[in-house]
Amino acid sequence: MAGNSFGILFRITTFGESHGPAIGVVIDGVPPNLALSEADIQPELDRRKPGQSKITTQRKETDKAEILSGVFEGKTTGAPVAIVIRNEDVRSQDYENIKNVFRPGHADFTYLAKYGIRDYRGGGRSSGRETACRVAAGAIAKKILAKQKIRIIVYTLAVGDIYAKKIDYSAIEQNMVRTADAAVAEKMIAKIEEVRKNGDSIGGILQCEIKGIPAGLGDPSFDKLNARLAQALMSIATVKGIEFGEGFGAANMLGSQHNDPFVLKGGKAGVKTNHAGGILGGISTGEDINIRLALKPPSSIAQKQQTLNEDLEIVETQVKGRHDPCLCPRVVPVAEAMIALTLVDCLMIQNSLVP
Amino acid sequence: MAGNSFGILFRITTFGESHGPAIGVVIDGVPPNLALSEADIQPELDRRKPGQSKITTQRKETDKAEILSGVFEGKTTGAPVAIVIRNEDVRSQDYENIKNVFRPGHADFTYLAKYGIRDYRGGGRSSGRETACRVAAGAIAKKILAKQKIRIIVYTLAVGDIYAKKIDYSAIEQNMVRTADAAVAEKMIAKIEEVRKNGDSIGGILQCEIKGIPAGLGDPSFDKLNARLAQALMSIATVKGIEFGEGFGAANMLGSQHNDPFVLKGGKAGVKTNHAGGILGGISTGEDINIRLALKPPSSIAQKQQTLNEDLEIVETQVKGRHDPCLCPRVVPVAEAMIALTLVDCLMIQNSLVP
Amino acid sequence: MAGNSFGILFRITTFGESHGPAIGVVIDGVPPNLALSEADIQPELDRRKPGQSKITTQRKETDKAEILSGVFEGKTTGAPVAIVIRNEDVRSQDYENIKNVFRPGHADFTYLAKYGIRDYRGGGRSSGRETACRVAAGAIAKKILAKQKIRIIVYTLAVGDIYAKKIDYSAIEQNMVRTADAAVAEKMIAKIEEVRKNGDSIGGILQCEIKGIPAGLGDPSFDKLNARLAQALMSIATVKGIEFGEGFGAANMLGSQHNDPFVLKGGKAGVKTNHAGGILGGISTGEDINIRLALKPPSSIAQKQQTLNEDLEIVETQVKGRHDPCLCPRVVPVAEAMIALTLVDCLMIQNSLVP
Amino acid sequence: MAGNSFGILFRITTFGESHGPAIGVVIDGVPPNLALSEADIQPELDRRKPGQSKITTQRKETDKAEILSGVFEGKTTGAPVAIVIRNEDVRSQDYENIKNVFRPGHADFTYLAKYGIRDYRGGGRSSGRETACRVAAGAIAKKILAKQKIRIIVYTLAVGDIYAKKIDYSAIEQNMVRTADAAVAEKMIAKIEEVRKNGDSIGGILQCEIKGIPAGLGDPSFDKLNARLAQALMSIATVKGIEFGEGFGAANMLGSQHNDPFVLKGGKAGVKTNHAGGILGGISTGEDINIRLALKPPSSIAQKQQTLNEDLEIVETQVKGRHDPCLCPRVVPVAEAMIALTLVDCLMIQNSLVP
Repeated sequence: MAGNSFGILFRITTFGESHGPAIGVVIDGVPPNLALSEADIQPELDRRKPGQSKITTQRKETDKAEILSGVFEGKTTGAPVAIVIRNEDVRSQDYENIKNVFRPGHADFTYLAKYGIRDYRGGGRSSGRETACRVAAGAIAKKILAKQKIRIIVYTLAVGDIYAKKIDYSAIEQNMVRTADAAVAEKMIAKIEEVRKNGDSIGGILQCEIKGIPAGLGDPSFDKLNARLAQALMSIATVKGIEFGEGFGAANMLGSQHNDPFVLKGGKAGVKTNHAGGILGGISTGEDINIRLALKPPSSIAQKQQTLNEDLEIVETQVKGRHDPCLCPRVVPVAEAMIALTLVDCLMIQNSLVP
Repeated sequence: MAGNSFGILFRITTFGESHGPAIGVVIDGVPPNLALSEADIQPELDRRKPGQSKITTQRKETDKAEILSGVFEGKTTGAPVAIVIRNEDVRSQDYENIKNVFRPGHADFTYLAKYGIRDYRGGGRSSGRETACRVAAGAIAKKILAKQKIRIIVYTLAVGDIYAKKIDYSAIEQNMVRTADAAVAEKMIAKIEEVRKNGDSIGGILQCEIKGIPAGLGDPSFDKLNARLAQALMSIATVKGIEFGEGFGAANMLGSQHNDPFVLKGGKAGVKTNHAGGILGGISTGEDINIRLALKPPSSIAQKQQTLNEDLEIVETQVKGRHDPCLCPRVVPVAEAMIALTLVDCLMIQNSLVP
Repeated sequence: MAGNSFGILFRITTFGESHGPAIGVVIDGVPPNLALSEADIQPELDRRKPGQSKITTQRKETDKAEILSGVFEGKTTGAPVAIVIRNEDVRSQDYENIKNVFRPGHADFTYLAKYGIRDYRGGGRSSGRETACRVAAGAIAKKILAKQKIRIIVYTLAVGDIYAKKIDYSAIEQNMVRTADAAVAEKMIAKIEEVRKNGDSIGGILQCEIKGIPAGLGDPSFDKLNARLAQALMSIATVKGIEFGEGFGAANMLGSQHNDPFVLKGGKAGVKTNHAGGILGGISTGEDINIRLALKPPSSIAQKQQTLNEDLEIVETQVKGRHDPCLCPRVVPVAEAMIALTLVDCLMIQNSLVP
Repeated sequence: MAGNSFGILFRITTFGESHGPAIGVVIDGVPPNLALSEADIQPELDRRKPGQSKITTQRKETDKAEILSGVFEGKTTGAPVAIVIRNEDVRSQDYENIKNVFRPGHADFTYLAKYGIRDYRGGGRSSGRETACRVAAGAIAKKILAKQKIRIIVYTLAVGDIYAKKIDYSAIEQNMVRTADAAVAEKMIAKIEEVRKNGDSIGGILQCEIKGIPAGLGDPSFDKLNARLAQALMSIATVKGIEFGEGFGAANMLGSQHNDPFVLKGGKAGVKTNHAGGILGGISTGEDINIRLALKPPSSIAQKQQTLNEDLEIVETQVKGRHDPCLCPRVVPVAEAMIALTLVDCLMIQNSLVP
């Protein structure tokens, strides 16, 4: 309960630092008899890995997953699945000059305040590299959801103030910024390149859509589906805001506008509109769940910045090379993973109810 | 783990339905030797209770707390503190005519989908009435935080599109909408009265500020302070969006703008700006934590609405009397409570680290 | 997580002190649509309540259960079920003279060491009275198990060195010591009366048998069925030892004697012998689970004892009236409850596995 | 929560199968600034490893621990510590002939019943090999306890009916059966050799003593120190019984005999006798905690046994080579580890109480 586990029945525990020997994840509660191999995991890791395009960090990591346990003759056994990813492109010397500096926007200061010690190499435990473990575990969760015909679609809705206008899911994996509007993708990429050349970075917005979810997932009170998804997604370091359905827009709506009347859809109860975003009282309605995430601009920028060091001296710092100018494309698979992990856990909890 | 508990070391479990005999909460993990009586809890409940002003529901509940355990001779003993609030103004007959109707925007449909049964009286377990339990428990958490000089301030920032402009904390409890701008309060109240007369409801935005928090609270990865607060606050049924620091504004900022440089403040490290909202890498910096919550318009409105009933027949429904036209003023103490509960838990976890 | 909750999916939280206003329990995770009323709970409480026979404490408590939540029109709704039992025969003045004394064998000293404060009235939170809450919750668990044809039988195997010789389940509830051997019951009762007259108390052994359990319950590694049952049963204050199957007898057996060969039983795999006691590798085999519990003699005795008080002065103490000379008969329903609570939780976890 | 984690604040998660690529453990909640390297862990693993003497299995495993995370420049950072141990002497072919056989006394049948699939190689997840992970994690726990002057001593009290008579802690690590009586050690070893030659195995009893523990550890109700230790120790597959203090002996004692009067000891309150075994009301008294564990004879024996296979055919089975004839010496470090893990968790929970 020191924060490195997520989930109740389908529960992951991640470990590892950016520049240590390896990172990894243990997934406990994987249902047995699920076909599983590294080939299921690697494509997801590849979508998150650094160096995948000109608009991501150029750190070189093959992010090769090795399954250490829980699979026998190609199937899960019910035992915990451990996955390890060795760190490769570990240039710790890049961090020597900032080892006692509190980089603006980073967790250097807060980790030191919390623990009285910190691994300064690439952010150590606070590095975004930890999210590779989530993606690896999420790949398993997605396999389970696929059997239930539940689909999770995440894409870049905006980079800075450049918004996708047309939503075409098939476009998402066809452009390096992972937006759903092929026409706008080029503008987003150009914007990202521009800020990168200025030694700067930029934020953006992700749109998440969950389709095919059955009604009834999520638990009352504190474990509402939206509450659990909020924790899951807000635990991605770069996320600063989250909205369900109309989100902040709902603050300026009337009840008569926002309420979604129930109507017949294919002989079943559905909603005419979906302002609520697929969740009522914390429980899924069966309609699409819609979420938006605000991503801050990455803190690592090439520009010189003034800040303090551990001796409380004013220093100038400059974060060297190899950083993401915009995190949108790489957070897409991470958000998918966190959603998938949450949904599998909710499904299993729901299954448990029949005594 | 069926969703009715919150917290790890300071852990509450709530129970009760809107129109059952009682609601209540058990708080396990209350540190011993804390002076505690009903007099500590009642004022907080009074801030949340119905009928407190003309712009809240006129349901009459004294919401009188009774402490059943955990206190001896005026002090906590380390044993669980149970608090029970009897339901009084229980007009279940008001709900007879909607007993098999899926009220738009309510959890009627989802609870039935989940459990195959539902207590239709006033929303049953999904009623906002459950939040009284959170407020009661939060009163204890606040006493603990007060000893550490940690303050939580929540106020109505907007009702619909009417925003507070001046922020004066002393004004908050002086106006019935609990905004920080006395001048704007009257406009907000007039707006609420107007929508109520139209048989409608309206949303709003709450601003939350946490002051005096030490650096180092929150845990890495999944239990980041913002992630835990996001779950805590999103578990309030009416909340549809949450932002930390710049929130969605960060999506259109550059790293060079958003990064908060560290500077000396009274001999200690602080930040020059606070775009991050007091949290870096999921751990508190010691600066103020700033959060905004989007509240949807209440689903219960007096206007006639078309919807379905359990037999999937199209019906017209009208929710009778006694509902809140805007939830902002009553959610203020609930949000404070959820923040307080989260912070005490984080404090206790941090204390545990010294072996 | 301050120790007053038990279970993962079917999770109870108990509260209350011996001489406070009330004791109670919240059960979260109760499956919906289970017929439930106080009439299901009261008979179990009556089996545990004080004053039920001449060999139990004469404290008068009707132990009347009131269900506060989670039941609607006679059925559970999936919401938490809260049950409260008001304390009635509260003679706190009986404890005035021992308020600062460390009674031998009681938790007076350890609670003070832990919390720096203690509720001295009747042991406060450490009182055996807390177990009434377990029995109330266990009554619900038993209803769930009954649907699965799972039966739990607990009886007094020994009082001191007087052992039941013949095992006849139908005899158990027919004698006040709850042993399975009607002929031996009188000797046990006589023994208990004798020690009581001497102002003393005596220990005993309970035998627990679980019948009709499906194969496959329990989880690997730390949540083995026997490990969870061990925690469950050892959490009853009076239990000092626990054995599964051959228990300590296994220490002096050979593998060739202890191993239970698998054989066909009604067309299914079963075991020829059952030395393992129905559990292999922490998971149920489907055979009867056999457990024995050692109960210490109750600490409250009428004899004068020398001990210390809080000022570390040597004092003579004498625990006044109304105590159990032997806890066997009253722990029988408590042990049944703890087993039932554990099994329902394991069943629900097992159900969750099918994704 | 699928059973492979243990602990609340100091929480371990183990993974791996006997004949998979590796086994390992993630320890979350390790306090920062603790000096730690593989050199702290290896000696403990060596005490547990196979092939350490003529009376243990001759499987060859170096059990070399590799720390993958959580340590920076020789100190823990507060991040999770992951330890991996590669499997080396993996002769899976030894298990080909028993791949569909339900070996008597093993978990073959129950794992298949639970999961519908099983890794038959060496017991897979149910193998005692998993305990190496506990020992590795326990080594860290012991370092933390050593700072608090808390010592855990475990030794073989009996092999079959041969009991240690003299208790000399310094003898324990000097004889291969790890008993505290050097004179009796030879008899025990001779007995073990004898049963091994007969293709059989034998059980035994371990004695556990915890010294230097502060008063106040453990939590009321369900998380009593003895209850948590009972789960911890009963989760070792070979343990069939557990006693605290007088254990089953208490069943035949009078209260006047069993009660431990409080007396002055070095100016502090202590107990004259220690029949309770160092725990009252589930909380440590500060006196030595005494526990006895009954170990069954190992199920793997060389003798031919009749049993069933998965097709429910009667078959003869013979477990090939390399097994432990008596588990006492190798379970000693495992029991120490489980006790250490429990105590560190309790210490951290106790620390959290001061708000």
